[in-house]
Amino acid sequence: MESIASFYDGAKVLITGGLGFIGSNLARRLVELGADVWIVDALLPDTGANSINLEDVRHRMTIRVADLAAAEIGPLLPGSKVVFNLAGRLSHLGAMLDPLPDMASNVHAQVVFLEECRKHIPGARIVYASTRQIYGRPARCPVDESHPVRPIDVNGINKAAGERYHTLYHRVYGLQTVSLRLTNTFGPRMRIKDARHNFLGIWVRRLVEGGAFEVWGGQQQRDLTYVDDAVEAFLLAGACESALGGTFNIGGGPPLCLRALAECLVKIAGSGCFEVKSFPPEQLRIDIGDYFADDRLFRKATGWAPRTSLHDGLERTLAFFQDHLRDYV
Amino acid sequence: MESIASFYDGAKVLITGGLGFIGSNLARRLVELGADVWIVDALLPDTGANSINLEDVRHRMTIRVADLAAAEIGPLLPGSKVVFNLAGRLSHLGAMLDPLPDMASNVHAQVVFLEECRKHIPGARIVYASTRQIYGRPARCPVDESHPVRPIDVNGINKAAGERYHTLYHRVYGLQTVSLRLTNTFGPRMRIKDARHNFLGIWVRRLVEGGAFEVWGGQQQRDLTYVDDAVEAFLLAGACESALGGTFNIGGGPPLCLRALAECLVKIAGSGCFEVKSFPPEQLRIDIGDYFADDRLFRKATGWAPRTSLHDGLERTLAFFQDHLRDYV
Repeated sequence: MESIASFYDGAKVLITGGLGFIGSNLARRLVELGADVWIVDALLPDTGANSINLEDVRHRMTIRVADLAAAEIGPLLPGSKVVFNLAGRLSHLGAMLDPLPDMASNVHAQVVFLEECRKHIPGARIVYASTRQIYGRPARCPVDESHPVRPIDVNGINKAAGERYHTLYHRVYGLQTVSLRLTNTFGPRMRIKDARHNFLGIWVRRLVEGGAFEVWGGQQQRDLTYVDDAVEAFLLAGACESALGGTFNIGGGPPLCLRALAECLVKIAGSGCFEVKSFPPEQLRIDIGDYFADDRLFRKATGWAPRTSLHDGLERTLAFFQDHLRDYV
Repeated sequence: MESIASFYDGAKVLITGGLGFIGSNLARRLVELGADVWIVDALLPDTGANSINLEDVRHRMTIRVADLAAAEIGPLLPGSKVVFNLAGRLSHLGAMLDPLPDMASNVHAQVVFLEECRKHIPGARIVYASTRQIYGRPARCPVDESHPVRPIDVNGINKAAGERYHTLYHRVYGLQTVSLRLTNTFGPRMRIKDARHNFLGIWVRRLVEGGAFEVWGGQQQRDLTYVDDAVEAFLLAGACESALGGTFNIGGGPPLCLRALAECLVKIAGSGCFEVKSFPPEQLRIDIGDYFADDRLFRKATGWAPRTSLHDGLERTLAFFQDHLRDYV
């Protein structure tokens, strides 16, 4: 296989949701690799989008603030070798409270965008950021890709539809789509403002602020992916022929329960504490319980393996937000 | 269980998509049962909606021409004992050619409608017309409800999302939803204008017009439900406590291949002929192959069983369209 470096060097690459957490880390890496990076992001409130994420490198890329479904997107596409399609809403609770904006981002806009890709860049690789949320409550762990898709919340339903559109456009129209079903991803530039996207962000915020955080439940088993490893997965999914048309779980290190994760985080921080609480009812009814991924299919297809230990990942995350807290709260 | 007759007598019942094929047959039956029938239908072109379906009984019900997502729907709901939610687009090929209107009807409008139901009639029974299309290509036949949901066309993706919203609103908000996954349903008032919705309609049209029809493929196994039996299934789903919150396949008589069905139809018609052709490519890539339902779960929950033989159903269908051809072409 052609190396990642030579594949992306000089290539036009478009990242939707590129001002968000994973998108911005991906963009920074692609700039290092010499890619011609184009960012599309609607800067929607309550998503992970944050202009500060790319502020220091914005002169090295092209950034357009626009909705994925906007008419101006199509003309940006020609010449793209790879599209990383990360635009979308992520809040499970937010989607329950207000389902239509989640649907607009994760279903409607995705189809509009795929139609534009079909028209302008039928030969480009399109890597879609899907989610383990589409599995609903796992019938077994680790969860492999043959596990039934049966989402139990609004965001999961919409993301499942969005992923299926990508698969359909590959099968029927030959678009070169790949979908990555992400698990909890963490690292610098993640949203830490509140608990809307994930539990870990608000934990990090509270610790950095010197306060205590709450762990809901605590017994749930989860795996986590450090963002650099997630970025590597996206790069490989975009470059490897063997990934084409596939749908893959992305996991990380060995699973652990949330209470153990909280203990690990406090220990690395060197101060702070947490309290285990029962789930708020509106969270409990959409909680999926234990989840950890069997990601051997992707490892086999691309050679990917996570390289950052949980300890190192948490340490880097805390260090980043100690330096940049005010930009993220 | 309370009898169907006493359950619906005097009850306010709202049917979305009530000017369509199954909806109008259901409305006519409910009028016979003494229900206070309210119809909402957007009369969308290229759906099964046809004002003629209820023309002779329109003085015995209330008919509103409106989109399911329109603001005027909410105020119509209070007092409804049962909502039969049949509004939606059905054309698999139409949805492939133009995915956004299908999504608007089968996903967006469904969520808007469920939110209105949640607000105005949280205790009403809501029976949703789902489809076997959400299973995609069956891994095994007969297909029971535990078969994975993995649609392979736009309409299937959207209907799967719509069904999941109904299940979610039951589980999380306690709405009394039931979903029926219908197979090929046929009978008087079906769309026969073209092949957009189903193969059988256009066969009936060609035979009644005295011409020949085409059978695509011919070896696919299918089961069929006569519309009176489908109507009975909806009535039971709305009335039976044991169906509450469930998702059920609705099948029919023994499966047969399309060629055998065509032969049966020609024999009953007493004239006409057909030609077996290979699939048009745009149909082939979204064809699901063999499908027939295992519907024992619904039979057990409600006591439902189809009562019309294929022969009688086809005979009545041909007779109806011999009398009413000009209203349907």
